[in-house]
Amino acid sequence: MTNRHQKEQAPGRSWTPDPASALPLHRQISNHYMDKIRSGAWPPGMRLAPQRELCRQLGVNRSTVVTALGELAALGLIEGRRGGGTRVADLRSTADGAVSPGDRASASERTASSGDGAALAGDRAPSSSDGAGMDILPIQPAGSWNSYVEEGVHYPNLPTVQDINRLEYEQGLIRLGTGEPSPGLLPGEAMTRMLAELSRKTLPPLSYEEPLGSPGLRSAVSSELAKNGIQADPDSILITSGALQGLQLIAVGLLPRGSTILLEKPSYLYSIHAFQSAGVKFSGLPMDEHGLLTDRLAREARRTKAAMLYSIPSFHNPTGILMDAQRRQKLMDVTGGLGLPILEDGAYQELWLDTPPPLPLKALDREGRVLHLGTLSKSASPGLRIGWIVGPEPVVRRLADIKMQTDYGASSLSQLAAARWLEGGYHEEHLQRLRAKLRVRRDAALALLERHFAGLAAWNVPAGGFYIWLALDKPVPLRTLFRAAHKAGLLLNTGDLYDRGDSRHLRLSYVYASPTELETGLPILAGLIRKLRQPGS
Amino acid sequence: MTNRHQKEQAPGRSWTPDPASALPLHRQISNHYMDKIRSGAWPPGMRLAPQRELCRQLGVNRSTVVTALGELAALGLIEGRRGGGTRVADLRSTADGAVSPGDRASASERTASSGDGAALAGDRAPSSSDGAGMDILPIQPAGSWNSYVEEGVHYPNLPTVQDINRLEYEQGLIRLGTGEPSPGLLPGEAMTRMLAELSRKTLPPLSYEEPLGSPGLRSAVSSELAKNGIQADPDSILITSGALQGLQLIAVGLLPRGSTILLEKPSYLYSIHAFQSAGVKFSGLPMDEHGLLTDRLAREARRTKAAMLYSIPSFHNPTGILMDAQRRQKLMDVTGGLGLPILEDGAYQELWLDTPPPLPLKALDREGRVLHLGTLSKSASPGLRIGWIVGPEPVVRRLADIKMQTDYGASSLSQLAAARWLEGGYHEEHLQRLRAKLRVRRDAALALLERHFAGLAAWNVPAGGFYIWLALDKPVPLRTLFRAAHKAGLLLNTGDLYDRGDSRHLRLSYVYASPTELETGLPILAGLIRKLRQPGS
Repeated sequence: MTNRHQKEQAPGRSWTPDPASALPLHRQISNHYMDKIRSGAWPPGMRLAPQRELCRQLGVNRSTVVTALGELAALGLIEGRRGGGTRVADLRSTADGAVSPGDRASASERTASSGDGAALAGDRAPSSSDGAGMDILPIQPAGSWNSYVEEGVHYPNLPTVQDINRLEYEQGLIRLGTGEPSPGLLPGEAMTRMLAELSRKTLPPLSYEEPLGSPGLRSAVSSELAKNGIQADPDSILITSGALQGLQLIAVGLLPRGSTILLEKPSYLYSIHAFQSAGVKFSGLPMDEHGLLTDRLAREARRTKAAMLYSIPSFHNPTGILMDAQRRQKLMDVTGGLGLPILEDGAYQELWLDTPPPLPLKALDREGRVLHLGTLSKSASPGLRIGWIVGPEPVVRRLADIKMQTDYGASSLSQLAAARWLEGGYHEEHLQRLRAKLRVRRDAALALLERHFAGLAAWNVPAGGFYIWLALDKPVPLRTLFRAAHKAGLLLNTGDLYDRGDSRHLRLSYVYASPTELETGLPILAGLIRKLRQPGS
Repeated sequence: MTNRHQKEQAPGRSWTPDPASALPLHRQISNHYMDKIRSGAWPPGMRLAPQRELCRQLGVNRSTVVTALGELAALGLIEGRRGGGTRVADLRSTADGAVSPGDRASASERTASSGDGAALAGDRAPSSSDGAGMDILPIQPAGSWNSYVEEGVHYPNLPTVQDINRLEYEQGLIRLGTGEPSPGLLPGEAMTRMLAELSRKTLPPLSYEEPLGSPGLRSAVSSELAKNGIQADPDSILITSGALQGLQLIAVGLLPRGSTILLEKPSYLYSIHAFQSAGVKFSGLPMDEHGLLTDRLAREARRTKAAMLYSIPSFHNPTGILMDAQRRQKLMDVTGGLGLPILEDGAYQELWLDTPPPLPLKALDREGRVLHLGTLSKSASPGLRIGWIVGPEPVVRRLADIKMQTDYGASSLSQLAAARWLEGGYHEEHLQRLRAKLRVRRDAALALLERHFAGLAAWNVPAGGFYIWLALDKPVPLRTLFRAAHKAGLLLNTGDLYDRGDSRHLRLSYVYASPTELETGLPILAGLIRKLRQPGS
């Protein structure tokens, strides 16, 4: 299941010296770093990771690292700065009248730098700017292009999300909250059969597809949607590079800066920056076990002059809640009276475990008021990067125009494969097997929770999707829990990702970690939570 | 070569009534439109195309369209508006205190609408807002979601670009400027062999890839770059969904709003909105036959406080110019003195026809000052949507973080295929064949120009890439020429796409239209140009 991780090392930290080489380890290291610096891959001003981190990355002891860095310092390639750790030295000739913001940003530092042969300051500064970070970032940016790294319109990911994105490639961690099927649940064998089928006759040329996506795939998606009660012909469907891109396109293509969207709180949408980067504000609404509560909706919509409502009615991320049919109708009625457009995220709707969910909101829509998002990422394969937006034709055409400007469309190869996957019956066959496996995993996870979290937390019993929303009885500092868990070999999706103010929830997932891994990880997690609730014990 | 176009109809205009059906044509049409309206795909307020356009779309005569629309009007589903053409009627009950901007935008119209049974106004309004448009847009947006269509942060494509994107799927047009290899030049057979090879053993699960992209592909790209003198290990490489996405990521991830980039003028970059949508300004610099002129560069960089320089040194788009080695070194020296970062677009560099181009700028860079873009779109297959950015590690990591937020990475299937394509030698084999074919096509195009454009225009002899930059002896109104050419069956890329103020250039391409098509199309184009230079003749 984790064979991919075993055979490939983590990115950015992949090189290690070769103990079998005739060259001493420290020399191998200094040579390697010299190449990085001389090629510009490590540009002037870039901060190296602290020595203990370098030891971990390189798998060598401290004295080896100190010797290697000493060699580089003697060559004038790196230099120590008080309070600034070790940085790549600036060997450029000083230029008169330099104009780049890169220069502006680091001008004061350059003046202070003495050039060749500066002594090493060691690792006095932590590698993460808040001083309480994970010490995972091996390198801090600075200088030239690097001064731009914190510029730009787009927000960086939340620190915890950045940590998670990086740590997902760290070996040996048990990933308790990952919202992605484990490699073992993905249909490697069926995909291979499907590709073999495709390659039995000459493929069509892989040109750019039409702005809305390949007609073949749109037609296959149209048939798929009809099974869920959604009548949408191919002209109403836009193929996207995953559902996330659909959100991104809507954020930049349909909503004016400063508009507000209503959404469930907590929500997946809080964990990404698609809307915030486009200047869109959020107003969260509470849920009960039947879904979004509609009583405050009208007042809140008027107060905020809301531009739309975002909802995940089926197997909500992160709470796993299934909105019932009555609530769906009520939601359509209330928003209909308001003329409020809806963005329905249907990412999980086909992943029911017990019985199929009620009709999607889009199936109840007769006004073109609902945009519906779907994806193959949660079931067939995230790596296909295939999703879709269903909506009124003028709207999907506007989004298609922006998509053409963004990436000229999703991969034609993926679209070809996805169409065959759906039409050839591979998808339905896979879904049936996947549901059976997920039922077993869900039940195993629930049994473990009963055993280890009784008296410590409450949780829902999900009828589908990927998630169990663990509600701790008492608040805990979640960022501290995240770090403690990482040290103990666990990767967590803490509740503050989905609701910034949260301090008592965790999103658990039974689709990535195996039942065996959960059996190891959940008791460790319970122990950490107990400790953090009772500091000093 | 155009078999894909023949078997698939154009999007959004795909349905036509079936003459063999027992149902009369007008009834088939009114039923089809009724479905569109009742499902919300055509939302309230949406404007239908003018009748003559509907006739063309549906392949029926005017009286059939009039009868069908009359039936819909009698049902209250559509209504005429003075000056507003025919629109989908708003059947929703009027809501008190509606807050959606959709309502706000169309409130006045709704008040004026009488509801059921309004008479048809016919096609008084042109379908395109400037009244001089192409009459191609079948439907105009309005109401609910549709009022958002003109909102959003992202600019729509230029009208000519939108027209081109749509018209590329119109059958029978000769595409004289398309920057994409024709399907016949794409390696359908080799791709099929490669996929068959891949599917001989079970594929790895198609999970999400690492933020920088799959290690296998980054390693293959690293080897490929080394052939061009660029030393970049896989940690310095970010895989993107085509080079366009690379530009997009740089625009939103590295540049503050209001910054200025220097670039060649004309340039491909003027034809897309990646940078403008991120609030970045352009300052164009002139070129000669050896590339960008560097004499005004330093002054302009200081005056505009330029954040970076964008350049396409090899087989420039749209001019085809190859920057020589001396100019490249000069450019590196001048920008080095300024500390000015460079974005080098290497999309065409491997497509040399006579001799390989000089070393890329990135190969001359020792400071990490150059970001280098590459792609498989121009040679292997646009539909793979695989490109890369090479740069300092901190910079590519920042861009990778944004990419994760944008679409969670490029298709794993495409990445797997691209890695095999490069490593298995398929790419080199294909390039050699492609170069031979392009040489023949270039020479044929040049011969045709000699025959039909002598005394009318001047042009370069491209040493690689896709383009001939046709410089007309006298200015012509390019938008008028575009429309006249479309009526005559030609699709043009006019110079104003690449330099807004231009009125005397056309980008010709020898990679999409076949020599036979050029033989038909170029004399027609010459005739149109002659006419427009001498109005009234």
